[in-house]
Amino acid sequence: MGFGITELLTIHLAAEHPQVVPISLFIVILCLCLIIGHLLEENRWVNESITAILVGAVSGTVILLISKGKSSHILVFDEELFFIYLLPPIIFNAGFQVKKKKFFHNFLTIMSFGVIGVFISTFIISFGSWWLFSKLGFKGLSARDYLAIGTIFSSTDTVCTLQILHQDETPLLYSLVFGEGVVNDATSVVLFNAVQKIHFESLNGWTALQVFGNFLYLFSTSTILGIAVGLITSFVLKTLYFGRHSTTRELAIMVLMAYLSYMLAELFSLSGILTVFFCGVLMSHYASYNVTESSRITSRHVFAMMSFIAETFIFLYVGTDALDLTKWKTSSLSVGGTLGVSSVITLLVSLGRAAFVFPLSVLTNFMNRHTERSETITFKHQVIIWWAGLMRGAVSIALAFKQFTYSGVTLDPVNAAMVTNTIVVVLFTTMVFGFLTKPLVNYLLPHDASHNTGNSDKRTEPGSPREDATLPLLSFDESASTNFNRAKDSISLLMEQPVYTIHRYWRKFDDTYMRPIFGGPRRENQPEC
Amino acid sequence: MGFGITELLTIHLAAEHPQVVPISLFIVILCLCLIIGHLLEENRWVNESITAILVGAVSGTVILLISKGKSSHILVFDEELFFIYLLPPIIFNAGFQVKKKKFFHNFLTIMSFGVIGVFISTFIISFGSWWLFSKLGFKGLSARDYLAIGTIFSSTDTVCTLQILHQDETPLLYSLVFGEGVVNDATSVVLFNAVQKIHFESLNGWTALQVFGNFLYLFSTSTILGIAVGLITSFVLKTLYFGRHSTTRELAIMVLMAYLSYMLAELFSLSGILTVFFCGVLMSHYASYNVTESSRITSRHVFAMMSFIAETFIFLYVGTDALDLTKWKTSSLSVGGTLGVSSVITLLVSLGRAAFVFPLSVLTNFMNRHTERSETITFKHQVIIWWAGLMRGAVSIALAFKQFTYSGVTLDPVNAAMVTNTIVVVLFTTMVFGFLTKPLVNYLLPHDASHNTGNSDKRTEPGSPREDATLPLLSFDESASTNFNRAKDSISLLMEQPVYTIHRYWRKFDDTYMRPIFGGPRRENQPEC
Repeated sequence: MGFGITELLTIHLAAEHPQVVPISLFIVILCLCLIIGHLLEENRWVNESITAILVGAVSGTVILLISKGKSSHILVFDEELFFIYLLPPIIFNAGFQVKKKKFFHNFLTIMSFGVIGVFISTFIISFGSWWLFSKLGFKGLSARDYLAIGTIFSSTDTVCTLQILHQDETPLLYSLVFGEGVVNDATSVVLFNAVQKIHFESLNGWTALQVFGNFLYLFSTSTILGIAVGLITSFVLKTLYFGRHSTTRELAIMVLMAYLSYMLAELFSLSGILTVFFCGVLMSHYASYNVTESSRITSRHVFAMMSFIAETFIFLYVGTDALDLTKWKTSSLSVGGTLGVSSVITLLVSLGRAAFVFPLSVLTNFMNRHTERSETITFKHQVIIWWAGLMRGAVSIALAFKQFTYSGVTLDPVNAAMVTNTIVVVLFTTMVFGFLTKPLVNYLLPHDASHNTGNSDKRTEPGSPREDATLPLLSFDESASTNFNRAKDSISLLMEQPVYTIHRYWRKFDDTYMRPIFGGPRRENQPEC
Repeated sequence: MGFGITELLTIHLAAEHPQVVPISLFIVILCLCLIIGHLLEENRWVNESITAILVGAVSGTVILLISKGKSSHILVFDEELFFIYLLPPIIFNAGFQVKKKKFFHNFLTIMSFGVIGVFISTFIISFGSWWLFSKLGFKGLSARDYLAIGTIFSSTDTVCTLQILHQDETPLLYSLVFGEGVVNDATSVVLFNAVQKIHFESLNGWTALQVFGNFLYLFSTSTILGIAVGLITSFVLKTLYFGRHSTTRELAIMVLMAYLSYMLAELFSLSGILTVFFCGVLMSHYASYNVTESSRITSRHVFAMMSFIAETFIFLYVGTDALDLTKWKTSSLSVGGTLGVSSVITLLVSLGRAAFVFPLSVLTNFMNRHTERSETITFKHQVIIWWAGLMRGAVSIALAFKQFTYSGVTLDPVNAAMVTNTIVVVLFTTMVFGFLTKPLVNYLLPHDASHNTGNSDKRTEPGSPREDATLPLLSFDESASTNFNRAKDSISLLMEQPVYTIHRYWRKFDDTYMRPIFGGPRRENQPEC
């Protein structure tokens, strides 16, 4: 960890431990963020991310004033810190808390949005920025930079929208936005890494194919690694049943193995983000049934807390970084120029997203027209899905720092300009688009009506069995036993309804072979609670 | 974090993230430790610490062979890593899980053992080593070094004994051993720091007084800071009631504030270890009643898990470090010389401990002879208390590294010799004394009989009300509601019995003023569950 200047505060007090002052300061600000976030909870316009950015900006200003314009940082950005310590808990938690039933039910749709979507969006943003930046007088970027910009601005931040959507009212929509958000993050990072490997000297017709091949290789191997670690953990937990002696050990094993999956992926130059996501999915599907009740509750909360702290940490950082005068001074663009370039990027982002959300939705609806699944993505939903993915967040920032700085510092004017542009885009989309999300969703899905429009259009009676069947298997704030009972109900209801053949086969396989080995409740003949 | 060599493994794979290989390796070994520890759980001879040391030694050997004698380390010891990241969770957890009722009931006894005891032990070890080391031909240490050695070897590791004692059968003994273990760690560190501040150039009669004054100042201010942070956290949690919106936030606040208390103490050059301990006690006394049930369960398990991982980590490190050939080669002592000096230290440790355990026990029994409290420390108990504190552990290692190395490396032969001596003493006491603890306790307290000898000698019938009354208020593995009911029972029983006047006044004050402000169940008129 590298730590910032704040010399004025450091004095002699903490001469022994130079990290003490910045860590203390950061913890205080984090706590402040939590408290303000809590107090503003009822105010649905302001979300956690916006609070953190604002608190970060205020702290940045204070530090800037105290240090007399020298620095606005508490911590120096460290890409190791982000990719090794902050990102894994966020992504693992996403996998661990994902509503698996819904996720796998809509697997193909989510994947087409999350994977094909990123490719389309990257193409449009890369090409568009290459074409438009030079018209704005912003030059000096290489071909690799343009492709990187495409991937950087293709990773979305859907937290903001998810806070507003009600998963009980619009389960399909919620699951699509959530699922796409996760897969999209992973795809962007994998694609970003694939772009790094292109040899631009020997560019030819094969390059695109190579990138795609590389992408497929990274995607599949990372997924397999994540699944393998998740299965091994489940198997070990089931076989040894640590809870017999100490719940502490089973918790420790879960946390350590989750982290190990990420590290192993990085070790083999795979995509840790994908690995840890699938490890999370597998652990919540099997491992969490092999531990004691208290460990099950604890693990859920621990992962949520770690993810929460990491996310707040990142947005706080973005807030303080916005006031980093050095970068603004180094930048080759004037303030006006930065605004111009940032507007172009924002425009490209919305275009790039529109270019796949609407066509892919239509395609999905077309594919599903003969199946008996009744869920169609209405036009209003398409608009919300499009909007939900316009915000840019932590992953964009991290990738931009990785591409354009060396440990958070850059002396190159063009690179500094790209970093400030990224920060402006993230700030603008998070704050302005974030503020507008609530009114937009309310306009498109009026609260009372959304209950019916949300799920299907063939359904006649509200509150029909299907409504219950689509409830999440494991909702976050309830105890495991409640969930278990509910799961039983949902499952028996689902069984009466036709589902995808693949899905049915998978369930059969899961029940017959996987669950007996790796753990999890049996679907038939469940023991009474 | 500084990371070790293991070049042979690093290769080009993880060129981007040099920390990936050692972290992955360490996690794998940690998991191995957990699994072996679990499998050996039934075997009460081998405890967690011994397992970790052995696994560490085996890994060290493997790394030594792979690197062809170059290095046995995965991680380079880093005193920051230890004092900033590993020690706080261990001590906080001790405070958080402490059986408060018992702890405060025996407060004076615990304090006299933990504070006066360390002074006596430090004096004997410092003086003894100064006198005996030169006779063994081991020279070159300064007066400050000898005093440091006294404090280094006065911090005990009671984990081993606590695993064997049954708190339900011998509550007084358990509470004394546990309480002393914690206070003793804190006192050693504070005293170690006080010794660092002595100006040996201008040594005179006032020096001892100055050290004592310094100690008192550090002790009281650190305690006050810990209590203050604990109370503030409880107040904030009670007033804002985060659980209303999200259990994640209250958990995050607890974790962050706990850590903040430690960092603040370090910032003001106080003793973080004492601060974080009292912060833990206060948080478990007030704050944990202000959060939702699931947060209460989760926090208990989270803190236990973090402490557990940190402890295993340290013992693993000690295991690998024992094979660090560089230190052995640098050392000014031969292997025989090291064994001689280590034996002297071990002897002094047992002498120094005997010199306060027996006199202070007699004194305590004498003071209590007129009170109606029926608990006497029998001679058998005194022997067990003496034995329980003979093991030396993580804190000794950390202090020795702090005194005699610079970030784990030393080129000075005398300093290297002291580090190897410390490691030998820790290994010997943990392994040999650790192995013998179980037979000793069994011999002194036969399992069936201990039920009666444990608690009192005036009591007539086993299983009398007092037995229940002394049960821990909050035992670790039970749900909060069970504890609440039990607490009600114990409290009403305790009320019928005479207790220390101070204790009664404190309870009155606690009920009337503290609990209504900071949270916690009311003792009278408790609502029915």
